[in-house]
This record gives sequence, structure tokens and C-alpha cells, in this order.
Amino acid sequence: MSDIEQLKQQVEEQGVVVRDLKAAKAEKAQLDEQVALLLALKKKLQIASGNGDEVDGPKKKSGGAGKALVLKEPKGTKDYTPKEMAVRTEIFRTITSVFEKHGAVTIDTPVFELKEILVGKYGEDSKLIYDLKDQGGEECSLRYDLTVPFARYVAQNGISNIKRYHLAKVYRRDQPAITKGRMREFYQCDYDIAGVYDAMIPDAECVRVAVNVLSELDVGKFVVKLNHRKILDAIFEVSGVPADKIRAISSAVDKLDKAPWAEVRREMTQEKGLDAAVADRIGEYVQISGSGEEVLARLQALPELMASAKAQEGVKDMGLFFRYAKIYGILDYISFDMSLARGLDYYTGIIYEAVLVEENVRSPTTEAQPPALVAKKSDKKGKKDEEDESQVRVGSIAAGGRYDELVGMFSSAMHTKGKKTDVPCVGISFGVERIFSIVKARKSEAEIKANRTQVYVISLGDTVEDSLLEDRMRIAAELWDAGIAAEFAYKIKPRKQAQFDTCDSAIIPWAVIIGKDELSQGMVKIKNMAQKVEEEKGGVTVSRSDMIAELKQRLQIN
Amino acid sequence: MSDIEQLKQQVEEQGVVVRDLKAAKAEKAQLDEQVALLLALKKKLQIASGNGDEVDGPKKKSGGAGKALVLKEPKGTKDYTPKEMAVRTEIFRTITSVFEKHGAVTIDTPVFELKEILVGKYGEDSKLIYDLKDQGGEECSLRYDLTVPFARYVAQNGISNIKRYHLAKVYRRDQPAITKGRMREFYQCDYDIAGVYDAMIPDAECVRVAVNVLSELDVGKFVVKLNHRKILDAIFEVSGVPADKIRAISSAVDKLDKAPWAEVRREMTQEKGLDAAVADRIGEYVQISGSGEEVLARLQALPELMASAKAQEGVKDMGLFFRYAKIYGILDYISFDMSLARGLDYYTGIIYEAVLVEENVRSPTTEAQPPALVAKKSDKKGKKDEEDESQVRVGSIAAGGRYDELVGMFSSAMHTKGKKTDVPCVGISFGVERIFSIVKARKSEAEIKANRTQVYVISLGDTVEDSLLEDRMRIAAELWDAGIAAEFAYKIKPRKQAQFDTCDSAIIPWAVIIGKDELSQGMVKIKNMAQKVEEEKGGVTVSRSDMIAELKQRLQIN
Repeated sequence: MSDIEQLKQQVEEQGVVVRDLKAAKAEKAQLDEQVALLLALKKKLQIASGNGDEVDGPKKKSGGAGKALVLKEPKGTKDYTPKEMAVRTEIFRTITSVFEKHGAVTIDTPVFELKEILVGKYGEDSKLIYDLKDQGGEECSLRYDLTVPFARYVAQNGISNIKRYHLAKVYRRDQPAITKGRMREFYQCDYDIAGVYDAMIPDAECVRVAVNVLSELDVGKFVVKLNHRKILDAIFEVSGVPADKIRAISSAVDKLDKAPWAEVRREMTQEKGLDAAVADRIGEYVQISGSGEEVLARLQALPELMASAKAQEGVKDMGLFFRYAKIYGILDYISFDMSLARGLDYYTGIIYEAVLVEENVRSPTTEAQPPALVAKKSDKKGKKDEEDESQVRVGSIAAGGRYDELVGMFSSAMHTKGKKTDVPCVGISFGVERIFSIVKARKSEAEIKANRTQVYVISLGDTVEDSLLEDRMRIAAELWDAGIAAEFAYKIKPRKQAQFDTCDSAIIPWAVIIGKDELSQGMVKIKNMAQKVEEEKGGVTVSRSDMIAELKQRLQIN
Repeated sequence: MSDIEQLKQQVEEQGVVVRDLKAAKAEKAQLDEQVALLLALKKKLQIASGNGDEVDGPKKKSGGAGKALVLKEPKGTKDYTPKEMAVRTEIFRTITSVFEKHGAVTIDTPVFELKEILVGKYGEDSKLIYDLKDQGGEECSLRYDLTVPFARYVAQNGISNIKRYHLAKVYRRDQPAITKGRMREFYQCDYDIAGVYDAMIPDAECVRVAVNVLSELDVGKFVVKLNHRKILDAIFEVSGVPADKIRAISSAVDKLDKAPWAEVRREMTQEKGLDAAVADRIGEYVQISGSGEEVLARLQALPELMASAKAQEGVKDMGLFFRYAKIYGILDYISFDMSLARGLDYYTGIIYEAVLVEENVRSPTTEAQPPALVAKKSDKKGKKDEEDESQVRVGSIAAGGRYDELVGMFSSAMHTKGKKTDVPCVGISFGVERIFSIVKARKSEAEIKANRTQVYVISLGDTVEDSLLEDRMRIAAELWDAGIAAEFAYKIKPRKQAQFDTCDSAIIPWAVIIGKDELSQGMVKIKNMAQKVEEEKGGVTVSRSDMIAELKQRLQIN
């Protein structure tokens, strides 16, 4: 990353700090200090980029003569280079193969939806939705996730059951933070099971799919945190949260992975007007976490909680879940964690989130307090010691849960007579940007082969005539016809060294080398460019008519 | 398609007829007649959809109580069902494999670009660009094609040569016409070669790629029409078109594939103020078409034209092109056609367009007037006899050409000092919607397998205990671990027939059938559900421990 990009990121991140402080109505002195830091960073960036007013991208059309066009991707989006695409394609291939192994089909929906389809589905995050400009006709917005379009598709087509996956881009007008993998355009890879089925069978499969995908991608140690909306709601009820505050308090609890309890408690009591004693009771509950067996036992030992019918339902579900999870061999990856709340409104049952764990923390199932939670409870402003610094890298890489009423919301809205068809759903969504960073970091740029070329056709002549362009073309065409991926220099008289260099830089494993004399005798040379085989150092001369067969054998194509 | 959808389409298409008539300043009587037809169709649609005012989709948020939400894709976009996705995935796989056989790498760019990147690139079509709403920050627009983002990418990253492909969606606020495959969101599949190379070598490869892709997709008989912008410009010059009218007149010529000469001539003379004698001279030239050899000979025999340096350059290029095309074995697919102009501003050299040819028309190379052109010169209003009706289905399925200055436009705009780096480019773009319709029509819905499930795990018991849910889960998990795609009914007690029906409808080729007694003896049954093998009619009983090995052998997995 260039200095300028680093500075840009610092400016953006400091902007978030200031914004958060403002939102939290921080003390003036503290706020002033952080604002001063932000201004200083902005100044530095302006100097570094030799540019007084375009730090945030062009605000207006640069119509004036002599004003340079800024060539860049829109803020929060990025181009993928060929080598990055090779990595991404491989990740998608792995994810797709797991989804298909579990019997899923795929669908595609438009990148934008009618605006009213998205309205009222995302709680506080609705402000992040991108709208299309009103140019006459329908009002449309870019999709925020793949779940709501999926529910719309199921309701619209009167589908009673489907297991589908969808790998596609979604859009959020959030403050981008590239180091954290937070982009405005990013891929989601979703797997969802819709249909009326017996309890927890599809739910357990979704978590197994998550474990399977993350293991196959080899992202490092991870833990899947689980909770159940009904247990969480019961906790809020028995703690004494008024019914109309439950979703707001749930949103506050959801921040426990980014902020310490003290801060979340302050949000509950000061911003959301919750009674301090109620908040403290919640504080007791949300500290409960550990293996399924442990947590179920602890919950069942709380008569106050278990008096709630909701809690009983949730606990019954989770008992079944852990029974199935054992059959699926995934217990070791799971932590049952009362502090997991998930932000979205539409969840109705089990919820889960896979988070990366630092290599040096303890195994997720040996402690009641799961390491992932410890790792993520770092305070943004507390980045002082080394430990905190390393913990910032830990983050959520997949998440999902059960949403039994979203399809019904659409199908009932469609029928003015109030006819409603519930299609219960459960799903898992992978955030690919973080996975991409991890997988990409494992390889050096030079090692990544972005093309699939197998053979490069080379001529060694020094003159136009000896450079044999048309023979190179003829041989390439023969290779293409045989299904072999082949290239040659698009020059009448290419330099010898440039051709060999291309084989190296593009990692092309084989060359067909032609010379005028050999060709007139009906011969060509085949050379292994990847492994330097001692006895074939200068290549092997074969008859022109055997060339394809010889190459196919060496490439193991039949 | 439902009646309502058919009606909607008829309304849209009739709308186009009326609009065209208005634009063409048709006689009042004729216009009135078509407007009346449009109104009648709209009325019919309103009645059919039981809906007085929402024909064009919701114009306003449906806030009122009892007002139904319209569940649909935005106008001009569509969902793809699992079976459609199976077809589309296969098409993309074929296209990608040809692109990769020719050594291309892939990149990805954001779905929206800074608005100013797109400005001034699309001539008259700029009005079709979708803008994002200004919600603060940068002004952005959805990409109109993949070519301009590619040129931006090349310029921005200072790339001197790259051969890249890109399969992605593009957006145009055009009047949709679903039967013609004209959508507002649709896929383009682009292959482009950028770099300073010797003349016509990459150009010939692009046309070979086009022929190869269309042949592999088996879209039916097609012809690739070719022309050269320099020859076309020379034709306009020697015909006497003023320099400032050349692009406008070129746009008019481009409509020859949709409208007869008389109409194009009227546009030139009446709308664009061209002298009638000049138009007639153009009319002579644009009738020239045929094989490369024929057309080159005819052009070279026109001293007036060949006096132009531009014409000489173009003819020289095309001579070289046909020499290479012969080596590549694609001459039989090509027609050199002076009436091909292509709408976009940025082409500078060879241009081409692949069009489908009706099966019953003559071979493209046996006639000076290529059949594709004849077939497409049908008049919209002349749909009276059977022949015209069939010809409407003929259309362009791939197009492209050389654009040597687009990257330079970006790189020079980036540097206020006027430093400019030209990176000459040539490319081909496939319009997948039409190809999709052709390929899809070859198979019946029932034949298309949308999932990749290989094995369905079935229990035949009638009681909960005999239904063996956990054994089915355990076996499925074993299959997944072995890399076998497997499913089972998500029910504690599934019906026997329902399980067999799933195998049929989902086209699942194998079943593992378990029963309580057999399982207690360590046995399971394997049954071929796809081919009913007589000697294995009831399935083959194998030992539980041999199950995986046995299935792998039958599935030919190693």
C-alpha cells in the first residue's frame, strides 16, 4: 500500500473515531483532541497527494479545462487484478463445491430491487442502502444483502421449499475501512434452506456447511458462536426490559464483540433509558458461554429464566441442535454464547457467527468464556499494548441464522386479503473479503498463475522470414483445436529472450520451439519450461505430426 | 409465460412502435391507428391484472394500508431460476474455457464507476446510463458496458499489455423487449487484447475466438460481418459527407440491419440534412459485401475511393486480416460488408458483428449480398407475410472491434500535462441473453438437472423409530466427508413415496436405502435411480463399511 493510501485509511478510520465520539456525546476535551488529530491527518494527506481539495474523490464534475480526471474506483470499491481473481475464483470454487455437495441449487436476482422490497428489513442499517437516481419509472435500490431478495423470490414464485446458494455482490454505503475488509461493494456467498421441516435438521446442516467451508479454505483457527433469539428474548423479558425496547437492547448487546461491557451498559442505560438494575441483570446473563452441554445445564439451573415459555422452546431447540451437531462431528468448533445477538431484525430462532481465533488462544470448548469473545472484547481506544493490537485482527467471517417470517412478510404483503404463506428459512452467509485477505496472504504474487496457458509457441529466428509468424499461428491453431491452451508473441519478429521471459513471468509450463530448418524437415522441439529436466535441457525434438499427441501426453490430457 | 406477462410485453412493444412512428413524424392517420392499438392493449392488461394503475410498476411507495406490495423484479431485469442457472453456468463455462484456451486472464471492476469516467463514451446512447442517487459523496453510474471500465483499469494502472476476459452484468435504461432479449440488466462476456502488437494478429484471434465460442455453444448457423472504420470513413469522405457529419451519418448506416435503405436514406437527408446525391453515393458503397477476396477486389477497382490514404490503410489491414483468417480456418464464417458501421464512437479499425442466420438461407460466402443482411433487412411494419415473421428472430449475438484511442483518452485526462500513453486494443463481446434463449430452448425443463446431488439417503420405516433420522444424518455426513454430494429428507418420519419422488424430480442418480434390520446386520442397500438395471431391481445389498468404496466406484470418483 502506498503512503497516500495508508494516509487515506488513517483519515477514514480517525473519522470513524470522531463520529463515534460525537454519537456517544463524549466530553468536549476528548472530542477536541480527536478532531485535532483528524485535521492533522487530513493536512498530511493533502500534502502527500499534492492535492488541496480532492481527498475524498471528486465532489463535482471536473468540467474545467486542464483539470485532471481522477482515474480511480469509486470509494469503497476495488478492482481485482488477474492474480487476485485467480485467488478469488479458487475460493468461490471451494465454496460452491461444498454448497453443491449439500444439494443446493443456485439462483440469480437483479443487482437492484424495487426500493419498497428493501424498506423495513434492516433496522438501523437502512440508511446504508444505495438508491438509484429517479430517472422516471420505478424507484430502485442496490441490494443490501442476498437474503431479502431470496425471500422476495420465494414469496413471488410461491415456492414451498428450496435449498439455494448465491454468490454475488451486495452494496452498503458504509464508511469503508479497507484494512478491516469493510467495503461498499463486496461479495456474499449465501446458502439457505427454505421449507417446513422438522426442528433443527436444516439448522445443524447450515452450521456444518460453515465448518466445512472454513476448514476447506484453511482460514486458520475459528469458532462458531451460537445463540437462540428466543432464549435471548426471554433473558430480556425476565431481566425486566420493556417489550418495546427489546430490539434496541438486543442491538446494544450485539456490540459486545466490538466494545467492552461497560460501554454497552452505558448505551443501554444512558442512550436507551434502561434501568441500571435491569442492565446489570442482562450483564449477568450475557456472560454465560461455553460448550453446549455446559451452557444448557447452566440455563436449565436458572428457574427464573426457565419459567419463560420462550426460554423453554429455545433450550429445547438447542438441545436438539447439539445432538445433531455431535452426529455431524462439529461440536469442537462451537461455542454457545449468550452475548451473541446479531443486528438484523428478521431472525427468529438460532443465530450464529463464525469468528477467527488467534493461534495462541485456548481451545474454544475448554473454557466457559470462549476465546473468540475474549479476543474480540478489545476496546478501540485501548490499542495500547501488543496484545490488544493483535486482537484487532480477529473478526467475523460467516454468519446467519433462522428467519421464519421474512417470506411470510412478502407473501402477506402481496395479497391484500391478508393471505399469508410462511416459508421458514435458515441460512449462512460468508463474507469473502476477509477470507480473501487470509488466503491471498499465503502466496507470494509471483507464485500465482493468473492464466491457464499450457504451451507457448516460440520461434528463434533473427529475421522476419526466420521468425515464422504464420507457422506460429498455424501451430497455435492446431493446439487450440486440440483443446490445448496456447499463446505466441503477437509480433512478426519477436525477440528470443522476450519469448522466454513471457514463459517465466506468465508461468507457462511448456514451449513448442520452431526453427526454419527443423520445420522444413518436419520437426519441432518441445521443452519443459517449468521443471528444468537435465536430460531434456534443450528440449526434445519430435515429428511435427506427433506434436499434439506428445503434448497431450505430457499435459495429461486425453 | 403468463397471459399478463405476454400482455405486458405486447404493450411494451407496441409502445416502441408508437414511439418510432412519432420520431419518424409519421402520418397522423397511421399514428392514431397505432396509438389506439396501444391503448386497447393497456386496457386489456389492466383488466387481466385486476389492477387499475400499477401497470408500469409502482410509481410511488405503497404506503396506504391494504395497498398490496408488488412482488416483482424491477422492469427490464429478471430472476434466474435454478434450471436457468444450470444452463447459464454451462454457457459461461464454455465461454470461459475458450477465453482461457487463448491465454486470457480475468479481472473484476466495480458495478458502478465514477460518472465522469462514462461521460462522452457512448454517443447517442449516453441517455441510457443509470445514475446512482446523489446521497452525498461521489457521483456514480452503473456501468454501461465492460469496455470503458477495462480501458479505465488499463490507464489507471499504467498497464502496457494485457489479454483479459470479463463476464459481468451491465446496465442500460432502454425500453425492454424481452422477446428480443433486450434487457436493462444483462450479462456481457468480453475478451480483449491490449498492447502494441503487429497489425491484425490480435484482431484475427478475436474473430477466431468468436467463431470458436459460437461453434462450441452450437447456436446454429451464423455469419461474422466485418468492416473497417477507416474504409467506412473514406467512403463517407469520397461520397462528400462533411467532416462534422461523419459520425452522425455512420450512426444512420448502422441502422441498416434493422431498417431498409429507404428509411436510412430519409434519416440522412431529412433528419441529418445530407445532400440527396451524397446519400445516394453512400447507398452504392454500402451495398458492397461478400467474401474477403471479392470485396477487396471490388474496392481496389474503385480509383476514387483508393485515392484516399485512409481507404488504402484499411484495405491493407483487411488484406492482412484475411490472410490470417485463412490460417485460422475461419474464412467460411465471414462476410466483408460495407453496411456494417457499429454505433459506438470509440472504434478506430476493424469492426465486426456475429449474426444468426436462418437455417433455410444460402451459405454466407456464395453470394455478394450475405444472407444475414438480407434476413435482417426486414421492416418492422412489414410483418405481413410468413417470411418476414421468421426473419425477425435473426439477430446480433457478438460484436466488437479495434479501439486504439480509448485508453489514451483516460491516460491523457489523468495527466494535466497532456502526457498520453496509447494502448491499442481490440476485443469481442458476447451478448449472452440471446445465446441463453437458444441453448435453453434445446432442452425441456424436466431434463435439466439444477443440483449436483449424487446420492439420496432413504429410510423406508413407517414409525419414528424405524425412520432412522440420525442414521440417515450419519450416513450423509460420511458421504460428505468422502466428497460425495448427498441429501436426505429433513423430516423425522418422511413418507416413502416422497423420498422416491424427490430422486425422480431432482434427477438424483443413486440412493442409499436403509432399514432397521439390515442396519443392525451392518448392511445397506445401494440402488441406481437413474437407470433401472434389471438384475439390480431392488438395489444391491452391501456391507455398511464397503458403502463408500462401492459408491465411489459406481460414481467413478477416485
